[in-house]
Parts: sequence; C-alpha cells; structure tokens
Amino acid sequence: MKEIQAEILTIGDEILYGQILDTNAQWISAELDLLGVKVVRRTTVGDREADMLYAFQAAEQRADIVIITGGLGPTNDDLTMPMLAAYFQSEIVTNEAVLQHVKDFFEKRGRTFSSLNKKQAEVPANAKILHNELGTAPGTWYEERGKIFISLPGVPHEMKNLMKTEVIPKLSKAYQMPVIYHKLIKTVGIGESTLAEILEEWEAQLPEHIALAYLPSIGHVKLRLTAVGDKRSTLAQDVDQQIKQLLPLAGQFIYGYDATTLEEAVGNLLIEQNKTIAFAESCSGGYIQHKITTIPGSSAFFQGGIVPYHNDLKVNVLGVDEEIISAHGAVSEACVKAMAEKVRTLFKSDIGAASSGIAGPGGGTTDKPVGTVWIAFSDGEQTIAKKLQLTSNRSLNIELTQISVLNLVRKSLKV
Amino acid sequence: MKEIQAEILTIGDEILYGQILDTNAQWISAELDLLGVKVVRRTTVGDREADMLYAFQAAEQRADIVIITGGLGPTNDDLTMPMLAAYFQSEIVTNEAVLQHVKDFFEKRGRTFSSLNKKQAEVPANAKILHNELGTAPGTWYEERGKIFISLPGVPHEMKNLMKTEVIPKLSKAYQMPVIYHKLIKTVGIGESTLAEILEEWEAQLPEHIALAYLPSIGHVKLRLTAVGDKRSTLAQDVDQQIKQLLPLAGQFIYGYDATTLEEAVGNLLIEQNKTIAFAESCSGGYIQHKITTIPGSSAFFQGGIVPYHNDLKVNVLGVDEEIISAHGAVSEACVKAMAEKVRTLFKSDIGAASSGIAGPGGGTTDKPVGTVWIAFSDGEQTIAKKLQLTSNRSLNIELTQISVLNLVRKSLKV
Repeated sequence: MKEIQAEILTIGDEILYGQILDTNAQWISAELDLLGVKVVRRTTVGDREADMLYAFQAAEQRADIVIITGGLGPTNDDLTMPMLAAYFQSEIVTNEAVLQHVKDFFEKRGRTFSSLNKKQAEVPANAKILHNELGTAPGTWYEERGKIFISLPGVPHEMKNLMKTEVIPKLSKAYQMPVIYHKLIKTVGIGESTLAEILEEWEAQLPEHIALAYLPSIGHVKLRLTAVGDKRSTLAQDVDQQIKQLLPLAGQFIYGYDATTLEEAVGNLLIEQNKTIAFAESCSGGYIQHKITTIPGSSAFFQGGIVPYHNDLKVNVLGVDEEIISAHGAVSEACVKAMAEKVRTLFKSDIGAASSGIAGPGGGTTDKPVGTVWIAFSDGEQTIAKKLQLTSNRSLNIELTQISVLNLVRKSLKV
Repeated sequence: MKEIQAEILTIGDEILYGQILDTNAQWISAELDLLGVKVVRRTTVGDREADMLYAFQAAEQRADIVIITGGLGPTNDDLTMPMLAAYFQSEIVTNEAVLQHVKDFFEKRGRTFSSLNKKQAEVPANAKILHNELGTAPGTWYEERGKIFISLPGVPHEMKNLMKTEVIPKLSKAYQMPVIYHKLIKTVGIGESTLAEILEEWEAQLPEHIALAYLPSIGHVKLRLTAVGDKRSTLAQDVDQQIKQLLPLAGQFIYGYDATTLEEAVGNLLIEQNKTIAFAESCSGGYIQHKITTIPGSSAFFQGGIVPYHNDLKVNVLGVDEEIISAHGAVSEACVKAMAEKVRTLFKSDIGAASSGIAGPGGGTTDKPVGTVWIAFSDGEQTIAKKLQLTSNRSLNIELTQISVLNLVRKSLKV
C-alpha cells in the first residue's frame, strides 16, 4: 500500500513574527498521524503573494495532500483565496450558499452584515465548499493534477470542527489507507520514567504489530498503543488483550481511555455512585470548577462551589473556625480539611473537596515556600488531606493543584 | 538599508507527527523580530537526509540567516551535524574542547560518559563552536557564500540560553539592522469586520513606513502596527501619534497594549480605583475567577466568589430571593442582577459581577435557547445587566461569557 504523504502550510505574519503560537499545525499533524497519513513537512509563510504561490508549488511537488490554514479573514491582508485561485488558474466567484450562511451568521448574533463580509463568500470557482458552521470563512477543497489541496480557517475551533466533520471523512474516502488502530491509556499521579520502569517487561513482550509511545504532558502521561494490520476488529482485540495485562501493573494510575479527561472520569464515577460534589478552592481560584463545568450535563453531579480567596471569607461565608486559621494558617492540613467539610455541608453535597496553598510568585515563607499546597476530600465519613510541594511557577501550580484534587477525588471514590 | 531575512528550520519527526508542540520556532521568531530581522519562512522536516539537505538549500536561496534547531542528540536518528558537513562539503572532526565539556558535564552530574556521548563533540570542520553551558550538544555557526547558518539544540532552555549569550550578540555585529517597532492594540467587544470599517479612513492615511494588521481571536481583535525605519524612539513616536488618532474612533473597545490581557486590564483598573471585586458565576462555572487568579498578586483586588450552579444555592447560600427565580427563572435579568448584588454584599467587595445562562448543549427552550446568557455588574449605586445571545457550542459560550463579564466590568469602571 502506497504511503500517503501530507504537507501542512500555515499562512500568517503573526505566526512568522512569533506573536502567536501555531497550535493548529500540531493538532492537524496528530490527526493525520491517527489516520495513517504521514506528514512530511510543515511550512509557515507570511501574507505575501509570491511566498504563498511558491509554497503551494513546492508542497504540490512533495505531497499528496496539502492542508493550508489561515489567511481567510475579510481584510485585505488575507490572501489565501485569491492566491489559490491564481495558483489553479481559476476565477474568484461568489458562492451564494456561503453568502447566505454569512448573512445568517451575523443576523443570529445581532451583528451588522457589511460589504466587507461579502468577501468571505468569494472562493475560487474550482473549490468544493466545506461548510464552516462555527464561523464565516468556509473551508475549501481542491482536486487538481492528482493532488488534494484543503484550505481551512486559522481560528482553532473552526479548523478543528471542519477537520472532524469534513476533511477526515473525505480523506478516508479518497485514499485506501492502511488500517491503524490507536488506543490512548491515560494515567495521572506517576512520572514518565517511573511508569516506563514499571512497564519495561510488558513493553518488551508487545507483539510486533503493536507499538507503544509515551506522551507526557503536565501532570499526566498518556500511553498510546498503535496497532497496524488489515482488520480493525482484530486489532482492537489485540490491543485490549495487552491492556488486560497492563492493568495489574499500572491500573491504579489509569483514569480513562482515548478522549476521556480526568474531570470526565471523576464525573462518571460520581454519576455511577449517584453522588454530588462541591468545591472550596483557594489557591486553585475556581479552575477545578471550570474544568468540571466544561462537561456537558455536569449539573447532574456538580452542586457548585466557592472561591474564598480572602481568609475572612473562609470564616464568614464558608464557616471555617477562625481559631484554625489563627493557629495553623490558611495553608494547613486543619484549614483545608475544614474547607472540604464545610463546603460539603453548606452546599448540601455528598462530597466536598478543597485546595489551599501558595501559588506564587510571592507569599512564600521559610516554613511554607511557594508551591506548598494542601488539598482535601471529605465524604461525611472521613476527611483525607494531602500536602503537595509544587514548583515556583504560578500557572503550573494552579494546573497541578487542579489535577491533584481531581485525582484525590477519583482515588477516594474508587476505594 | 537592506532588510535582513531569516528562515527557521526545525528538525524532528516528533514535531512533524504532532507529538510535541514546537514552541522554539515561536520564541526564536519573536527574538529575531525584536532584533529587526525579518523571518520569512519556517519549515519543519523529519529526521531524513534528503529532506534536510533540500531544506538547507532552499533556505540558503531565500534567506540571509538560517537558524536550525534539533537533530543534535547522540543517537543515530540525529542527523543535523553530518548533514551540515555534507552540505558544506566539510569533514566531521572531533572538537577537543567540546569533548572535554561533555566529559565534565557527565562527571559533575554523576552520570557515566559512554562512547555514544563522544558523538556530541563531532562537528563539521568549518563550524565555529557556540558553547552550550546548559547541555552537551554544542551550537555551531557557519559563514559560507555570504550566508550565516546556525545550528542549535532542540531542548528549549539550552536553545534560549545559546540565543541570548551567543547568537543575538554575534548577529548584531554581523549586520547593520533596520529598526522595527511593533505595537499591539488590544480590543474587545467588536468584530474584525466592523472594526475594519470604522478604521478604514484611518488605515488609508497611515504613513508608508507603518503597516496595520488585524489579528482576531475568540472575543478579541488585536491591531498590530509595525513601523520600519532607522531610530526606535522616532518610530515609537510615529506609532503613538497614529494611536492618538485612533482613540476617538475605537478607544472604547481598547483595553490595553502589547502583552496586557483583559483580566489584567480589569485588575489594573480595580487597583487604580482602590476597589475590590467578587463574582457569582453560574454558566461560566468559575472560569472568570480562574482568569482573574492567574494574575500574580490578584488578592489585592479579588475577594473571591461563588459558583451557585444549582438554583438552591443561589437562594440558600447566595441569598437570591426565591420568588425571583420562580417568577423569572435563573436565566433572567432579575436573577443575574440579584446575583451580582448579593455576591457584592456577602463577599464584602466594592463590586459584584455575575453570569447566568444556558451554556448548552442541553437545557435550551424556545424562549431561552442554548446560548442565552445574562451578565451583570453592581457597585452598590447601580446594577447593570446585559443579555447575550451566544452560540450552540458549550466551551465557546463559557469563553465568551467570561470575556463579556470582564468587559462589562471594564466599561463600567471606565465611566
């Protein structure tokens, strides 16, 4: 089977000049990799005609598929549509369906449709339209000289939605792909190298057609098993077989598979056990509740919570005993336990969880340096607290506190 | 003055396949931009000989400076050194100073120096060494055929240190640079096309040496002014002059400049006015408080907040009148106003702000479809509420609610 090769082309001075980080190219790369398409090159050029035309030409020579992002706004520095028209020697036409969509899009949001917005409906005559329901710039698809060109908006959520709903299904049809089956195994609470040591023998015995990759990110390590073969159902069975052997070794760290997030894993446990939760967040500042409420339907298990940032509020609103704070400070085992217990009763939930710590960069002392964080879980029968010694970086400390609290809840519910 | 152009070349399969995000290229771009070097292209290729050689050649044709990162590890798939030697028809030699540094580096850390690590001292004979004090792979510098090639390790902190201590000082000496001055003007509450219409005449009268770009992201549009000339102070004056003319046209939408975020702008206004704030977040689920608490020192103006996700909590903890909810529902002007007022008094802050809406995907009705959101601001003298009609996308609705609430606070404080 011929390997299908792709090139990703990012258009935009703001990327070249380092003003924004190109997260689109990574996301597209990972999606194509899952599909079995090999990305052979990524290129970023600015909003200049000659650079764009040269990049189209070079990409067409090298790759089967060229995916272009960006340069689709309504302003004059957005050149992707006219340059694609020039490249394919096609003319620019107004697509009536897109124009109607743009008008509807503005009307629905109570915004005024202007003549400038008409430009969004101007596409090369040889383009097939990929309907962008989340925005005004359409995706477009070109099949010329045996190659496929795809142009997508640079706005990440619009690009991702178009990839999922239009591009990936159409690419799967366009080529005969090898069957690749991926499974992500998601772990929390263990570092990459420790996990790799635990799994050394298991990894060594994996059959030839199954490969393992470690994908670490902040607070998490994902294991990706990739099986290559002819039949999806057989590959899925082979992978499941390996996971069965993995569970006795590392099961306690695994919170889910594939797209499942830690907050979803916690939500699912709460739903299964018919329990509700409330949070009292000091140093994590509402981030745990934000994560929980990204889940559609989270009102089934999430009562609510409080961010008692100032100590007065821990006492006067949440009801923590003033003497606990004066004797031990707010960043203490006694205070975080009281916070978890009090938010549980005040918010009438089955479970309360809490954080209190020094996120930094200021506020540290010799006894309690920046990165000292207490977290707690309470279910009415018992209250468990844990001390974390994190980093000197504020945003990292907030992220790690959020993960640690959710993992503490997960582990406590699992028992 | 001749414009100095650079190309950034990233080497590595792990980048191409989307396993890691290339943050190096953005960082280098931003540094070169500050220096007055124009990045004209970024390219990423995998660990393959032909792809690397082709990329060297293409980059040399286009740019004055080629900066290469990655491919310098001790394993066989790291090819940057041998490929640079092949490209310059130079031979590979062992650099004794680098070899000694690698040995010392291992000894200092109690690690065993192996024959594999000797490879780190093997460099092309025509290379000047850039000493990498933080790691084992040296940077190298080549001047050939009037062009400069620079190879740097892919490990971000090693690369950054080499850029700061070696590359930037050497580049500043090698070229007489044009001066480039950028200013980002950050707006909220207006779409790109509406803003472009308002600014059409202003844009048309910009002097030739100042260029404007629109950089939209969710809920925000950044305007970037780029001035090119001889003297930084003159350019800064020229740009400030243009901004002065912009303010009467679009000043109400501008919350800050350059790196300032909307939450920082709101924080700065609160600090200036010596006021504190508290939030009652229903549909935004703690996200506004998370944004506010990412700011170091936010405890100076942020009292705390509550996420009364269930209606019971709006009544029993926050103190909203039960009759308001039974008469108008929680997603209503009366309820969101009461939430802003009650959180202000309960949390003893000068200002209270609130959100209540249907984030989706479920929960919509004919009267209140998904995306219906009420937001409010209260300062004890007046309470202002605003209705938003957002999208069908949950995470987008949460993001837009957060931005809209902070913008409502900003505008109310500005009056």
